[in-house]
Amino acid sequence: MLNIGILGAGTVGTGVINVLHQKSLEFENKIGSPIKVKSIAVKNIEKHKSSFSDNLIFTDKPENVVNDPEIDIIVELIGGEYPAKDLIIQAIKNGKHIVTANKEVISKHGYEIFNLAKKMGVLVYIEGSVAGGIPIIQTLKRDLIANKVNSLMGIINGTTNYILTEMAQKKRDFSEVLQEAQKLGYAEADPTSDIEAYDATYKLSIIVSLIFGNHVKVEEIYREGIDKISIRDIEYAQKLGYTIKLLAIAKHHDDGSYEARVHPTMINSEHPLASVNGAFNAIWLNGDCVGDFMLYGKGAGQLPTTSAVVADILNLAIDIKAKNILASSESHDYIKIAPIEKITSKYYVRLSTADQPGVMGIIGRDLGLSEVSINSLWQANTGEDTAEIVLITHPVTEANMNKAINLLKSSEGIKQINSLIRVE
Amino acid sequence: MLNIGILGAGTVGTGVINVLHQKSLEFENKIGSPIKVKSIAVKNIEKHKSSFSDNLIFTDKPENVVNDPEIDIIVELIGGEYPAKDLIIQAIKNGKHIVTANKEVISKHGYEIFNLAKKMGVLVYIEGSVAGGIPIIQTLKRDLIANKVNSLMGIINGTTNYILTEMAQKKRDFSEVLQEAQKLGYAEADPTSDIEAYDATYKLSIIVSLIFGNHVKVEEIYREGIDKISIRDIEYAQKLGYTIKLLAIAKHHDDGSYEARVHPTMINSEHPLASVNGAFNAIWLNGDCVGDFMLYGKGAGQLPTTSAVVADILNLAIDIKAKNILASSESHDYIKIAPIEKITSKYYVRLSTADQPGVMGIIGRDLGLSEVSINSLWQANTGEDTAEIVLITHPVTEANMNKAINLLKSSEGIKQINSLIRVE
Repeated sequence: MLNIGILGAGTVGTGVINVLHQKSLEFENKIGSPIKVKSIAVKNIEKHKSSFSDNLIFTDKPENVVNDPEIDIIVELIGGEYPAKDLIIQAIKNGKHIVTANKEVISKHGYEIFNLAKKMGVLVYIEGSVAGGIPIIQTLKRDLIANKVNSLMGIINGTTNYILTEMAQKKRDFSEVLQEAQKLGYAEADPTSDIEAYDATYKLSIIVSLIFGNHVKVEEIYREGIDKISIRDIEYAQKLGYTIKLLAIAKHHDDGSYEARVHPTMINSEHPLASVNGAFNAIWLNGDCVGDFMLYGKGAGQLPTTSAVVADILNLAIDIKAKNILASSESHDYIKIAPIEKITSKYYVRLSTADQPGVMGIIGRDLGLSEVSINSLWQANTGEDTAEIVLITHPVTEANMNKAINLLKSSEGIKQINSLIRVE
Repeated sequence: MLNIGILGAGTVGTGVINVLHQKSLEFENKIGSPIKVKSIAVKNIEKHKSSFSDNLIFTDKPENVVNDPEIDIIVELIGGEYPAKDLIIQAIKNGKHIVTANKEVISKHGYEIFNLAKKMGVLVYIEGSVAGGIPIIQTLKRDLIANKVNSLMGIINGTTNYILTEMAQKKRDFSEVLQEAQKLGYAEADPTSDIEAYDATYKLSIIVSLIFGNHVKVEEIYREGIDKISIRDIEYAQKLGYTIKLLAIAKHHDDGSYEARVHPTMINSEHPLASVNGAFNAIWLNGDCVGDFMLYGKGAGQLPTTSAVVADILNLAIDIKAKNILASSESHDYIKIAPIEKITSKYYVRLSTADQPGVMGIIGRDLGLSEVSINSLWQANTGEDTAEIVLITHPVTEANMNKAINLLKSSEGIKQINSLIRVE
C-alpha cells in the first residue's frame, strides 16, 4: 500500500483524484499494490467535500500533508512559485517522493530541488510540468537514452499556437484573435505568460536540463513573444513556403556550446511542426541515433495533464518498490547557454522604403557592411511613395544581423523595419 | 558489471556494437555500472573480426552464447523465425534477460515467450521489434499507463509509405515506383512481406498486445496490401480531401470487443497521419485521458533501430539492478479479434458503368437492399460508352458492404468494380 497526499484540487487535481478512483483496481493490478489518496490540501474544504463522492480527507493545511509520516508520495498540483516550492522542499526533507506538474517551480528551482532529492534519496517526477499529455520527460530520459540530441524544436504553448493558427487560417489580426481566444477560454484574462512566451521558456528550461544533462538558468534563455507578428508577415511566409510558429529551440553544438531560445520562427511548411495546428503541442528533435523524431499531442487541459501526472504516480510507485537507482546517477549542475548574439540563423526582414531608385543599393550596402548576405528578395509597391521589400538572408550571426538593422534604420530611403523573424 | 551476448552482427547488430563501444563511459555513468559485450554469434567469424577494431569475441555457435553462465542479457538480432525463437527460449530457460528486435518471433511466439519469461522471472524487452526508433512499446507501457487506448492508427511500414508517397506526389504507377524503390534499397528484391502487409501485421499484433492487455493471434488480424492501389484512386482521394495510407488500425470498443486490421485506408488530408511522408513511420492514437496523440520517426534503418535496442539494453540494466516488478504483473493470455465482416467503416467505391440512363437507379437499389447508404457521389464520363462513378458511403458493416458489392457485380449496366477502399 502506498499513501499519497495531494496538494491542490483544481482542474488537474480533480482529474487525478477521479482517475485514481475510477481505475484503482486496474492500477493495482499493474503496479502490484494499491494506491491510496490519504489526504488532499485545498483552500476551501467545504466546496471540495461536496464535489467528490468518495470518503476523501480534505485539509486546508498543506503543511500537515507534507509532514504526515504515513504519506509516501506528495503530488503537488497547486501551481505557481510559492508556497508550492516551499512545500516541495519540506516534503523532500521529510523523505517523501514528489510528483509535480509545476513548470515554474521546476524551471526556477529544479537545481535546488533535484540536488536535495539526490541527497535525501527520493525521486522527483515532473512529466506533467511540460507539454501536458506529451511524455517528453520520460522519452528523453529512457527511450532516447542512447542518443545525443543535436537539436530540438517545440511548439509547447497551446495558446499562442491557437492564435497563430487562427491568424493564418482566417486571415485575422492578432488582437482580434486574442480577444476571441480569451472568450473561448483558450487564453487567460491576463495573457502575458503565454503571449510573451514566459510559459514556453519555463518549459524549454526543463527540457534542456534533460538533453544537455544539466540545468540552465531560465533567465539566460532568450525570449520573444508573438505580439508583434502581423497578418502581413504570415501571408508573406505562406507565399514563400513557410509557416510562422512560436518555437522553443535548443541546440547542442559539436563544439560543446549550448543554445536555447524561444521566439516566433518561420519554418518550412513541409516540416512536420508546420502542420501542428490549434491548441496542439509537438516536440520535434534530431538525435544522433534516432534521427528525426516527433511527439504530438495535447499540451494542456485536465485529462491530458492528468494522464502525465497519474503515469508519474504509477511509475514512481513501481520505481520505489524497485528502488530504482536512475535518479541517483543524474548530474545536477548548471551549464551556460550561449548569448543570443552568438547564434547563427537565417532571417526574414520586411521593411518599408521610399519608392525611388537607389534604395536597393543602400540595402545591399548596409547588409554587406555587416557581413549579411541575401538569399532571396521580393519588392512590392504599396501605394503612395512607399515600396515594401521582403528578404530572406543566408545564415548570419545575430550580432551581424543587429548591426545591419541598425545601419538600415539610419539610412536614407529606409522608412521603417516592419519585421525581423528568424528562419529555421 | 553486466555481460551481454549478442546474436547476429548484421546491420542492426553492428550499430548496437558500435554505439555501446563509442558511448560506453556515458552509459556507465547513466546506469551506474559498465556493460560488457562478452561474445557475439555470427555466421562468418573471419568476416566480422576484421570489421571491428575492438577485442571482441566472435563465435559461430550461438548456443554457446545463450548457454554461457556469465552472460546476463541476450540481445537477439538475427531476425526471422528460426533459429531465433529457439535461441530466445533456450536463453530464457537459462535465466537470461532478453532484448530483441525480432517482430516475427514476438508476433508469432510472444505468448509462449512472455509466459516462460514470467515463470523464469526474467525480462523481455522488444522496443526494436516495432517501428524502429519510435518508442511505442515503452510509451504504451509506461507513459500512457493511465489511459485506455480507444483507437490507434499507425503507418508502421516504411516501404509501402514510401511507395504511396511517391505515387501521390509524382503521379506515378505502383509498379514503376516499386521498381525504383527496389533500386534505391527502400524495397527488398522480394517485396512480398512489405507490399502484402505481413510486416505491418506482425507489428500491429505486438502493439495490440499492449493496448488490449493480452496477446492476439496474428492470423486473426485482417491483412490487405497496397498492390491494388491505382494512381486513379490516389487522384480521386486528393480531390475529395483524402490521402491513401497503409494503416494498421486497432480499436477497443466500449462493448469490450477488439478490432485489429491492416489495409489501405483513405484518411482526411488534415489528419496528422496524412502528412507522414516517405519512409517515415507514425503512430496516432486516442486515449481516454491523453486525447489525440502521435509519435513520429524513422521506423527502420541501422541507427534508429539501434536507438531502440540500446535503450532496451540500458533500461533493462537499470531495471535488473532495481529488480523491477513491472513484468511479473503483466497478463499474458489470448483474446479474440472481431472478424473483419463485423467492423463498421465508411467505404470509397470506384466503379465503371455503362453510360446510360437508369444506372444510377440500379446502384441506389443494390446499395439500399444491402443497407448501405451513400454519403456522396461523383460521376465522370470516361469516353466510349463507359462512365466512372465514385462514391463514399456512410458507415456500414463490412458484411453489408460485401453484400452490396456482390449485388452490383451481377447487375445490368455495372461493368466493373475498380476499387473498394475503407475510409477512416
